Amino acid sequence: MKNFWLDNFSIDEFIVNALKEDMFYGDITTDSICASLDNPQFKVYLVARSEGVLAGRPVFERVFELLAQDKVKVAFNFNDGDNYQKGDKLAKIEGDARYILTGERLALNFIQKMSGIATYTRKFQDKISKYGTRIVDTRKNTPNFRLFEKYSVRVGCNHLHRFNLSDSVMLKDNHIALYGGSITRAVQEVRKNLSHVHKIEVECDTIAQVEEALKNDVDIIMLDNMPIDEMNKCVKLIDKRAIIEASGCITLDNIEAVAQTGVDVISTSAIIMKAHSIDLGFDYRN
Amino acid sequence: MKNFWLDNFSIDEFIVNALKEDMFYGDITTDSICASLDNPQFKVYLVARSEGVLAGRPVFERVFELLAQDKVKVAFNFNDGDNYQKGDKLAKIEGDARYILTGERLALNFIQKMSGIATYTRKFQDKISKYGTRIVDTRKNTPNFRLFEKYSVRVGCNHLHRFNLSDSVMLKDNHIALYGGSITRAVQEVRKNLSHVHKIEVECDTIAQVEEALKNDVDIIMLDNMPIDEMNKCVKLIDKRAIIEASGCITLDNIEAVAQTGVDVISTSAIIMKAHSIDLGFDYRN
Amino acid sequence: MKNFWLDNFSIDEFIVNALKEDMFYGDITTDSICASLDNPQFKVYLVARSEGVLAGRPVFERVFELLAQDKVKVAFNFNDGDNYQKGDKLAKIEGDARYILTGERLALNFIQKMSGIATYTRKFQDKISKYGTRIVDTRKNTPNFRLFEKYSVRVGCNHLHRFNLSDSVMLKDNHIALYGGSITRAVQEVRKNLSHVHKIEVECDTIAQVEEALKNDVDIIMLDNMPIDEMNKCVKLIDKRAIIEASGCITLDNIEAVAQTGVDVISTSAIIMKAHSIDLGFDYRN
Amino acid sequence: MKNFWLDNFSIDEFIVNALKEDMFYGDITTDSICASLDNPQFKVYLVARSEGVLAGRPVFERVFELLAQDKVKVAFNFNDGDNYQKGDKLAKIEGDARYILTGERLALNFIQKMSGIATYTRKFQDKISKYGTRIVDTRKNTPNFRLFEKYSVRVGCNHLHRFNLSDSVMLKDNHIALYGGSITRAVQEVRKNLSHVHKIEVECDTIAQVEEALKNDVDIIMLDNMPIDEMNKCVKLIDKRAIIEASGCITLDNIEAVAQTGVDVISTSAIIMKAHSIDLGFDYRN
Amino acid sequence: MKNFWLDNFSIDEFIVNALKEDMFYGDITTDSICASLDNPQFKVYLVARSEGVLAGRPVFERVFELLAQDKVKVAFNFNDGDNYQKGDKLAKIEGDARYILTGERLALNFIQKMSGIATYTRKFQDKISKYGTRIVDTRKNTPNFRLFEKYSVRVGCNHLHRFNLSDSVMLKDNHIALYGGSITRAVQEVRKNLSHVHKIEVECDTIAQVEEALKNDVDIIMLDNMPIDEMNKCVKLIDKRAIIEASGCITLDNIEAVAQTGVDVISTSAIIMKAHSIDLGFDYRN
Amino acid sequence: MKNFWLDNFSIDEFIVNALKEDMFYGDITTDSICASLDNPQFKVYLVARSEGVLAGRPVFERVFELLAQDKVKVAFNFNDGDNYQKGDKLAKIEGDARYILTGERLALNFIQKMSGIATYTRKFQDKISKYGTRIVDTRKNTPNFRLFEKYSVRVGCNHLHRFNLSDSVMLKDNHIALYGGSITRAVQEVRKNLSHVHKIEVECDTIAQVEEALKNDVDIIMLDNMPIDEMNKCVKLIDKRAIIEASGCITLDNIEAVAQTGVDVISTSAIIMKAHSIDLGFDYRN
Repeated sequence: MKNFWLDNFSIDEFIVNALKEDMFYGDITTDSICASLDNPQFKVYLVARSEGVLAGRPVFERVFELLAQDKVKVAFNFNDGDNYQKGDKLAKIEGDARYILTGERLALNFIQKMSGIATYTRKFQDKISKYGTRIVDTRKNTPNFRLFEKYSVRVGCNHLHRFNLSDSVMLKDNHIALYGGSITRAVQEVRKNLSHVHKIEVECDTIAQVEEALKNDVDIIMLDNMPIDEMNKCVKLIDKRAIIEASGCITLDNIEAVAQTGVDVISTSAIIMKAHSIDLGFDYRN
Repeated sequence: MKNFWLDNFSIDEFIVNALKEDMFYGDITTDSICASLDNPQFKVYLVARSEGVLAGRPVFERVFELLAQDKVKVAFNFNDGDNYQKGDKLAKIEGDARYILTGERLALNFIQKMSGIATYTRKFQDKISKYGTRIVDTRKNTPNFRLFEKYSVRVGCNHLHRFNLSDSVMLKDNHIALYGGSITRAVQEVRKNLSHVHKIEVECDTIAQVEEALKNDVDIIMLDNMPIDEMNKCVKLIDKRAIIEASGCITLDNIEAVAQTGVDVISTSAIIMKAHSIDLGFDYRN
Repeated sequence: MKNFWLDNFSIDEFIVNALKEDMFYGDITTDSICASLDNPQFKVYLVARSEGVLAGRPVFERVFELLAQDKVKVAFNFNDGDNYQKGDKLAKIEGDARYILTGERLALNFIQKMSGIATYTRKFQDKISKYGTRIVDTRKNTPNFRLFEKYSVRVGCNHLHRFNLSDSVMLKDNHIALYGGSITRAVQEVRKNLSHVHKIEVECDTIAQVEEALKNDVDIIMLDNMPIDEMNKCVKLIDKRAIIEASGCITLDNIEAVAQTGVDVISTSAIIMKAHSIDLGFDYRN
Repeated sequence: MKNFWLDNFSIDEFIVNALKEDMFYGDITTDSICASLDNPQFKVYLVARSEGVLAGRPVFERVFELLAQDKVKVAFNFNDGDNYQKGDKLAKIEGDARYILTGERLALNFIQKMSGIATYTRKFQDKISKYGTRIVDTRKNTPNFRLFEKYSVRVGCNHLHRFNLSDSVMLKDNHIALYGGSITRAVQEVRKNLSHVHKIEVECDTIAQVEEALKNDVDIIMLDNMPIDEMNKCVKLIDKRAIIEASGCITLDNIEAVAQTGVDVISTSAIIMKAHSIDLGFDYRN
Repeated sequence: MKNFWLDNFSIDEFIVNALKEDMFYGDITTDSICASLDNPQFKVYLVARSEGVLAGRPVFERVFELLAQDKVKVAFNFNDGDNYQKGDKLAKIEGDARYILTGERLALNFIQKMSGIATYTRKFQDKISKYGTRIVDTRKNTPNFRLFEKYSVRVGCNHLHRFNLSDSVMLKDNHIALYGGSITRAVQEVRKNLSHVHKIEVECDTIAQVEEALKNDVDIIMLDNMPIDEMNKCVKLIDKRAIIEASGCITLDNIEAVAQTGVDVISTSAIIMKAHSIDLGFDYRN
Repeated sequence: MKNFWLDNFSIDEFIVNALKEDMFYGDITTDSICASLDNPQFKVYLVARSEGVLAGRPVFERVFELLAQDKVKVAFNFNDGDNYQKGDKLAKIEGDARYILTGERLALNFIQKMSGIATYTRKFQDKISKYGTRIVDTRKNTPNFRLFEKYSVRVGCNHLHRFNLSDSVMLKDNHIALYGGSITRAVQEVRKNLSHVHKIEVECDTIAQVEEALKNDVDIIMLDNMPIDEMNKCVKLIDKRAIIEASGCITLDNIEAVAQTGVDVISTSAIIMKAHSIDLGFDYRN
């Protein structure tokens, strides 16, 4: 798995702000207790308390670089995207005890949340890969944390939905309502104003809507909250003329059935919003 | 419940960044489809799809003010902290359809996540209020979203733990390890350097540690991951000489038993990290 | 023409920085000369010194709002996208002379540059509208001024190319070189990793490349620097199976010939990079 | 030519913002196509497609440092201010292909625009150097890009006008109109309030105004849009008692005639606003 | 006294940061104590505990606008630059008690420091006004607080030295040392590169240096730490051919003697660096 | 003395802004005079012109790192907190003359102000250390400079009061006035809402108030502006049941008498607000 877009220029300001959020006036515990110590050193391991998929290595490393410059060394044994087992030592963190103690929580907050998303996403993806179906995220997420959440989803399944409102069109019922419910008129209006580089996706609740969308040559048809049998009909109807995205109440239990209908993509906010921080910890005893 | 600290000066920059995150180059769907419409208007309701505790009203309102100035009016029927029922119309949003469509997702992302935390927190608090015990959060949370998460916890239970590393001391085992495991020496060192306005809390795993902490007149003793019977012994031993905080693997199932031991405060990352976004939606049909 | 994406949240920080750039320590001319004057008032007109297409009205208005709050009133007689003639009074600016004198240059710098782009863009568009062809911009522009430049292009022709590297794929020869010149392998690799919401465009220098691109079902084929007759062959060959974009050395003189080939879109950096600031001025005598 | 004021502290934030502008959610083309490649390397040359004067070397280098840290090496063969010929290899860029492909456009956008200004400015300067006259810029420029534009002008001619409204006084007709057209009263009022370290320049349209300005011992007299013969009279009249600046409709064709009048400085917005991006490109074949 | 350059665009970001500095996680005293109160109101006066010169009114007002929007009203009875007496009610502050209590300290921190500078500066100015001499500041001040400090100096004496290193040249001994101590060579070198709109000032320790500076037609000669009799000689020698600035160890006791020598300007860091915050307070009882 | 909280992440943005404040458009003196020099080098010493306590070393070093990267080397002979004597060479600064000349003033502005505070603070502390009493600061300080001021106080005396309104409660008379002057009701209200990790301090003007505060088990009692004999009574009355802080009109002359009463802490704004910049300079001759 390559590092897609967590380059320093895109994350440094966020991390610096997060450092200030947690310790702007210093870490009064660590600062006070270390005041008389002469260069105290620690060697600790980032240890997995359960199995999972790693995501967030570049962020974890960068937290310590921005906090401690070269006074703390971080050496990972795994890359983002790798599966790890309970008990695995994911990384060794070594150096000035003050910075390790101070930065521990923030570094963990990032990597636990990110690995949690990657791990959960992969569980969904693993259920459907045999059907050639892809899981993707939605725009339901944490404000200003999207870069990290989307990165983690991609680590989990190598696929994403649009980044934001600027890069792809999705016509929902409320948009179409502005044109009296006419997909045709709505799509025509969009086409007049839309760049040729952007795709048009239309959310459809009924087969009639799917038929209307097809007549308008849209790029992607989203089947929203449809029962499986209706989805089957739509897949046949569409017959490769548009990419098919299924959405609505997707769970680990029902996703395989959805994939079996032959849809191309399944989107769900669950992979971000229902993913829990995964259990990772610093092991100081060694 | 009064508005504690979500004043405009503290949230505006965050919201503006979140707007840019989601629509810096515009909302190409809404912009394209509204290009020919003459001042399209919408009236929609923010509707509860399940019961809960509201949190995030000032943020929700501010999203639309910063996005649409006075072109969208938001009128809430509930205040932060209020319980609402499934089906309740929490607010009416009225005005320029373009801004309502564009801002809907971001406004929901805030209020769903925040109300989710408040609702989940109150469930914990309700289990233990009769014992006079308080639930509080930890520093395990989403980087740079802490202001919103902590606000939501307070809405849920009217109590919080420290804000960050600058405002209260918590000595964990790793801090104490720097002094060979001696709480006494660690506390003495901290006292030399600490402001008289800050409290000292010590994390204790054993009764022996509790005894040592008491000898050093610490302000707060955290019983970390202790079995109930050991906690009972500690509560008796401490006998009001320090505030007692219980922590570690707290769930809705076991929290009442913990409260019954007589501890003052129970801290858990669950109220933030395991709270799901609550189900709220915009209802355009009316 | 509606206001596409110059909402306050997206331009305020830029304008405030531009104000600081030009007058951080004040306007020592105006400040000095107005020190003894009691509320001096001015009424001036923004006057066109040549014909053109207006672009930048919301920015012009916002400059004075951020500089002078409500002490200066700006009243436009034209909307963005309107054609105006030499001598037209585009707007009346009235109020505190100090703010008018101080803000004049910055407000003009925005609107002259933006209207210059819109005017020049429309000249290109007008040459080709009868063929149903669209002119679009490229990513060759002024760093950090893209939002304003792209807005101005859209005002001129109602169409745009991609916003940046995040919202659409364009495979150039250097990308393809990484796969030994094989468009097929390059496209396959991209497809593995690309979101289903993003299109793929391939830059082709030869008919052979066009054929290879077609076999790979790419969304857009860019004919790069092709002679007219070769373009004609490509248009026939492609036969509506992909959107065709022509690019390279487009001028007002040759663009009609390019459009006559039947390409869908013509892209050129000229509409931004060769557009001059248009001549607008403040007329204080009246 | 030494590096005047493009130190890192003054340009880093601007460059980081420009990187985010062009690739905040990543470069989906390069990221997708490089995902399976093991450390792909490129060596490319920055090649001149026409002759010119180089400006922007430190910005070009810094773009790659901030984007790629040390994964891309840039080695220039020319310094800012050097003349180069068509075909010259201005620099070698070597290293991680991903960062070279991703950063190419932004680095070029800077250096093409900046070298374009330096080249065009020098053409003006070369016409008048034999008369000891200097060309300078004005405040008509691109908002927030002034630092780069002014730097480029200086690279071209080693001279500049004021930076902004804070560092020098220029009394225009509208300022003087506040005092009923009396230069005397206007200058007196300014003198009362102005720092002794700042000069006073007055814009004069007529010989009578020049005489009034001289009586008030102003530092600089700007002859605004004067015919050559009137300028000649003014130069004699002023007779070294003030610095003389000529302004208004300066072109490469008429500038020598203006210089021959004996004015000290000629100011024109043309050197920034009419300078085109110069043609530079990355040559990947080698 | 008019408001020179504390417009909102130039101070808002600074004030917002100062608000965050003092209360990012809220004012836990005021927030806690007001939680149960229903819209508590206060009316308080800003009262002078000693006489002085007011400076900082627009900042004081803006603190409450940014903190409380329109929930607190501030009504001043004095303008910046006005002398006030001990006991004077400078302003009435009325409205939501929470915001008044929370913002009091920050608003006072600004206005006490600024009025302290204005008051102290005017004491210096009053000693020398009869000689037509002006007092000015230096660049010795508080980092990032210069806008406020310089504004306050101007309120005190209506005059300033340069703003920063960009707007005027001052050649000190260390600059001249680079040319072997030759003022002539140093000035010639500067003239080659300097804009015609900027003045040249040279620091002189000896009469010989003054003579050399005069030969080079510099604009301002600074007499640095010279005894009075030597200053007298220099003033005669210079004989209006340059502006004369005296500097070095200026106090309220010796400044009149310096002014009597006939120098034009006296510069001292004392007016900023030795000015104490003046005693102002909120009077809640009334 | 260890470096408590001036890590790079917390000071870099402030220093970069200060650099821009002083030289955004360059240092026209140094830039002009160095334009023809080939890599001019300087070696200078930071020399003490009077005795003092050093504070600000990490800031001084960081100014030159951010300004000059590795082109200037700074080598200190003293650490923050060390006493130095008049004439001591505190540091050697060596390297590119341009950056040394340009950065000198800003680096000095920081270290002179900070060492001035540390030196003055230590004078107060030295008077009272024998009584085991501590001197601390208040919130009266320079907006946005608090981090540097508080750091300097700690360097001087190793103790501080609260950082801001978020980390400790202080009930002043105006807070208590909201409850009709009842400390009891005020404290009860605060306790309902306050985190268990935060202390409560009450400002008392009279013995009766002290008695009421004691009954409410507050953590800290501030004796505000009390005469010495009344303080003596309060100390006896309190009898270790609360930390005692004395405040109001503390000077070097009266502080020992206050300490002799047995109070624990003495707070005064004087150590920040009345501390003058200490006299340090660059010595270029050597």
